[in-house]
Amino acid sequence: MATIKDIASRLGISVSTVSKGLNGASDISEELRQTVLDTAVEMGYTTKRMKKEEHKKLCIFIENMDFETANQFGYEIVLGFKQAAYRDNWEVAVTPITPAFQTSEKYDTYMLKNGFSGAFLVGFALHDDWMSQLSATNIPTVLFDNYIRRNPAVGSVETDNFEGIDMGIDHLVSLGHKKIAFLNGSLNSMVSDQRQQAFLDSMHSHNLPVSEELTAYGYYVADSAKYHVPNFLAAGATAIMCGNDLIASGVISECKKRGYSVPEDISVIGFDDLPISAHLTPPLTTIKQDRVELGKSGYYTLSSLLNKVSISKTILRAQFIRRKSTAACKERRLE
Amino acid sequence: MATIKDIASRLGISVSTVSKGLNGASDISEELRQTVLDTAVEMGYTTKRMKKEEHKKLCIFIENMDFETANQFGYEIVLGFKQAAYRDNWEVAVTPITPAFQTSEKYDTYMLKNGFSGAFLVGFALHDDWMSQLSATNIPTVLFDNYIRRNPAVGSVETDNFEGIDMGIDHLVSLGHKKIAFLNGSLNSMVSDQRQQAFLDSMHSHNLPVSEELTAYGYYVADSAKYHVPNFLAAGATAIMCGNDLIASGVISECKKRGYSVPEDISVIGFDDLPISAHLTPPLTTIKQDRVELGKSGYYTLSSLLNKVSISKTILRAQFIRRKSTAACKERRLE
Repeated sequence: MATIKDIASRLGISVSTVSKGLNGASDISEELRQTVLDTAVEMGYTTKRMKKEEHKKLCIFIENMDFETANQFGYEIVLGFKQAAYRDNWEVAVTPITPAFQTSEKYDTYMLKNGFSGAFLVGFALHDDWMSQLSATNIPTVLFDNYIRRNPAVGSVETDNFEGIDMGIDHLVSLGHKKIAFLNGSLNSMVSDQRQQAFLDSMHSHNLPVSEELTAYGYYVADSAKYHVPNFLAAGATAIMCGNDLIASGVISECKKRGYSVPEDISVIGFDDLPISAHLTPPLTTIKQDRVELGKSGYYTLSSLLNKVSISKTILRAQFIRRKSTAACKERRLE
Repeated sequence: MATIKDIASRLGISVSTVSKGLNGASDISEELRQTVLDTAVEMGYTTKRMKKEEHKKLCIFIENMDFETANQFGYEIVLGFKQAAYRDNWEVAVTPITPAFQTSEKYDTYMLKNGFSGAFLVGFALHDDWMSQLSATNIPTVLFDNYIRRNPAVGSVETDNFEGIDMGIDHLVSLGHKKIAFLNGSLNSMVSDQRQQAFLDSMHSHNLPVSEELTAYGYYVADSAKYHVPNFLAAGATAIMCGNDLIASGVISECKKRGYSVPEDISVIGFDDLPISAHLTPPLTTIKQDRVELGKSGYYTLSSLLNKVSISKTILRAQFIRRKSTAACKERRLE
């Protein structure tokens, strides 16, 4: 483990200057401070300093996700994490983050500079700079809905997408549906990949065929429905599973616009159970991700990593929430 | 939620008799007590009574696994669980269990009778009576290396077998091995199934063919080696991955007996990193399951379930432990 002296001798500066850099003193230049921090990180000084922290501080970094108000996906994740962390007397900072910022400063450096012992990363994209840096970090870090191979300092938290989708298909099959379409979220996200595979697995285990014209990737927005719903209807779908509740709300609108009643003509199932889903017309049958539990589990997993218990994945149960957007299949003729 | 009164009126007995049955008083017959308990469980009385418990008691049930001494697989699992649970002031009972006992008494009844709030089940077989009962239990329960679908009261803990096997294959491939055999544990266990799939996935991702003559299921005992090693050698294997360390110790003996040196002629990799593996000749390269961490995670997962956070799976990192039983591939001619 590198000491302050090692860092000083590597940089050819005094121990007190290194110490100033590490502690954020104002009488050295920002550039020198950054060099000290980068070198400290490179030499593995990270963990040592963090153990000395008087303040116990964790950070939630959040990207591509709204979390400010109760009806947004990230709100309860942040809430659950804080609730669990506060019980163990951690301070928790919540920091929205951009790709540009990740390019400008390394993850380990940011963590060291700000005295964070660990972090929970929510909403990051596979191609983000920090994601690629996480393969080598020593800082206890937990990802929501993402996964880093082989680094025992990094864990992940997710909902069981396989069981979730399977419960939705089970329900539709029990209502007599066979021509079930799937409008998934974005291509190239870990979650969409899992839900796609889950849909294929579940249809297979129910002995139902999957045709190409009944599966599509949209984006996680309601608007994607208008491109795909007409094709699903034309192909004879009687039910549509959706990658999330927003997509489902778009699917319901699009069905109505085209003269199909939900659930009388078409059954629709969402995913997430956002607060809005109970207030759609009809109220949405959906697969719930309990976001408070996800946030709490994010903290529990991080707490384990901080205690050197290398949890790789924590997977939470999905819950099936039956409302009014699904009904018995009424056989429909092809148009 | 059923009350004592509900149970009394269902059975046509007095409230005080029900209370005696629930509290293990000595002045009612054992038969009546059992009836009271079974009825209480059936009517969903379980949780309520457990919340009233003064003593906080958990149980580890253990089957098919030795745990009494430090060199046995179960020892550190039990230890880790206790270490974590004691910090939260739980009492922990450790109860070895047989299939016959499971047939004689229901899981929920046993838990209620003994005042346990939750349990950690280690070493259970898929066909055990209690395993089938777990689909419907409301009692927070965590399984090691087993999985119950869809019941949010039941969670599981396991090591990442996929990453573990993949690290072993990576290592062998880096040493130039291509003809890699796999001697797995028992058929029809969740763990063996995962490791088999992991082996196939990893060979595939390394662009190596898998031939039927290079894969076999033994049992989790050293003796299984003598039936399969001769076939592997005849088929030109230069390395053998094993389902656990005991199998690997048998494989090493069998290779030696047939005039093959380990690792000069044949590389061997185990799984588990039991204490014996460092003392084999040669010391065994293996994939470690950290059993103290597994035990601790068993408790953390159970603790989450007790707090109504429905963790379905906790997966721990495997670790690659390089010792002396693997070496660069020396191309071998077929005999």
